[in-house]
Amino acid sequence: VKTQLDIPAFDNPVLEAEVRARWDNLTKPPGSLGLLEDLGTRFALIRGEAMPPLDSKAMYVFCGDHGVTKEGVSAFPSEVTAHMVRNFLRGGAAINVLCRNYGIETTIVDCGVDAPCETGAVDCKIAHGTANFAVEPAMTRNQAEGAIENGIALARAAAEKYQIAGIGEMGIGNTTSASALLCTLCGVAPAQATGRGAGLDDAGVIRKTRVIEAALARHAACAEDAIGALAALGGFEIATMTGFLLGAASARLPVVIDGFIASSAALIARDLSPHAAQAWFFAHCSAEKAHRAMLAQLGARPMLELDMRLGEGSAAAIGISLIESAMKLYREMATFQDLH
Amino acid sequence: VKTQLDIPAFDNPVLEAEVRARWDNLTKPPGSLGLLEDLGTRFALIRGEAMPPLDSKAMYVFCGDHGVTKEGVSAFPSEVTAHMVRNFLRGGAAINVLCRNYGIETTIVDCGVDAPCETGAVDCKIAHGTANFAVEPAMTRNQAEGAIENGIALARAAAEKYQIAGIGEMGIGNTTSASALLCTLCGVAPAQATGRGAGLDDAGVIRKTRVIEAALARHAACAEDAIGALAALGGFEIATMTGFLLGAASARLPVVIDGFIASSAALIARDLSPHAAQAWFFAHCSAEKAHRAMLAQLGARPMLELDMRLGEGSAAAIGISLIESAMKLYREMATFQDLH
Repeated sequence: VKTQLDIPAFDNPVLEAEVRARWDNLTKPPGSLGLLEDLGTRFALIRGEAMPPLDSKAMYVFCGDHGVTKEGVSAFPSEVTAHMVRNFLRGGAAINVLCRNYGIETTIVDCGVDAPCETGAVDCKIAHGTANFAVEPAMTRNQAEGAIENGIALARAAAEKYQIAGIGEMGIGNTTSASALLCTLCGVAPAQATGRGAGLDDAGVIRKTRVIEAALARHAACAEDAIGALAALGGFEIATMTGFLLGAASARLPVVIDGFIASSAALIARDLSPHAAQAWFFAHCSAEKAHRAMLAQLGARPMLELDMRLGEGSAAAIGISLIESAMKLYREMATFQDLH
Repeated sequence: VKTQLDIPAFDNPVLEAEVRARWDNLTKPPGSLGLLEDLGTRFALIRGEAMPPLDSKAMYVFCGDHGVTKEGVSAFPSEVTAHMVRNFLRGGAAINVLCRNYGIETTIVDCGVDAPCETGAVDCKIAHGTANFAVEPAMTRNQAEGAIENGIALARAAAEKYQIAGIGEMGIGNTTSASALLCTLCGVAPAQATGRGAGLDDAGVIRKTRVIEAALARHAACAEDAIGALAALGGFEIATMTGFLLGAASARLPVVIDGFIASSAALIARDLSPHAAQAWFFAHCSAEKAHRAMLAQLGARPMLELDMRLGEGSAAAIGISLIESAMKLYREMATFQDLH
């Protein structure tokens, strides 16, 4: 698998000094735009230029089904994934409304939905859902690598068209995968890593925690490296997002990462290429229980904290709009010279 | 002064149940849009209807000068207020860029700038800056009441044209007023209430704290009620915002409050009419030291925390865009019935 991509050096003290000097010369007290100045500076460093345009914005929604739903780990049945894919393609989901509002183009990616690929979705389907990782690895190592390569190719194509991209997902059961990955990659205890997902009750959370505990024991041997962990416990949408994060960094395409599941892809991608993480923004800290711990593992400061827990890229859409605002401030504000 | 306005009853359990039922029927797990659902529900309750439109958005920037700047309490000279008013009117300030980006109309209000009222600004000038409250009350009680009435009238006119309004401000020296008001109205100690404003150094903060301590002692007698405190320690822009908050509530115009200084107007307005506070949203917790304590006094949960400390309405503009996104989700998302 070609995960050893050539990632550019995003650190550039000369460029950073130039960008910070422009911020300080705008008609406001130095630093008074706070995080917006940092976001804008990072955007410029990722793009590698002092006045980068930000006109074309993309959202990729990665969809896949999960065999582990057979264990009763989700408040919703598996079929909801395919229903929601149709909803995305008809424009009726939250992510569609938000992306229309912010002028972001949406792309729906079928990474492994347990239904025929819908017209209008990008076909990156590896299989009709993963295997049930309570009894066997979710996927083969080849499948994991294939999904990563799909994501890399998508990101490289995206970088030709867009100047920023958000990543979100849909997949009933996928918080179970994300929690299991947090446990195996970071040593977090299953009881700390397991939350309500789309709305489990207390008994459901206990069941989900036990499924994760058993799976960690079952797959300990093959989950010793990141791709092994991804194959054993992950999902096709998580694997494809992993590739997207790497491919985007290699192409200087800044990525805004949505929530708990998208962040779990970042855990794996960072393991494969630590340097790539400089190209990513984290949109929010979600209401899913272990997202704060996952963000801490990633050393990430999220932009927003709105108690959202929808996924789909919903918080990433808002995050893109914040970066867009930052770049408009950076480009369009008067300087102190203009005042006189 | 007509501060005893007729404020409508915003509590409406029947309407609230109808609005919450619509949120729960949209194609997402119940509650998964988090704070966006709460913001949208509150917007509908303030408007008093189940499907309120949100198409016309306003930002009011209240400007005024402060005699207390003679005590060296600000990192910038007083003249910067008038410079920034011209910058607002030419469209070069941060608030202009943000409002253009979010489709918000800006109105610049001269409440007491120490310069002739600029063409293009709304003339609500009470005087050319307040008196220096280190030596005498910042304004007379009559002036405070006049500014409040100006704000009420502005809000009532705004409610004819707009469906939401943000309030922000510009006034060199006005964090000194806002900190002093927090001390006198809430019993917060000056050392806890005093921050860097637009960029004071440590010695400046100590000087500013001493000015506030002395002013609290000097004006203790006349600052026993909210209008007395406002007259002794406030600013013309703070007084006009106070009126705006009351007038908006009386006209069912939701208001998004910007930062530390705008929040200090909310402290006074709530004292005058506690019920009106239900019509207000707090955009952010700013980086100004005592804003968190002030928001706690107001029982407010801010939408954003981006380390911003610019004022002008900059965070309120982003807050309006969040409420707009919430209302678009509420109005435009598919319901579960639509899916089948």
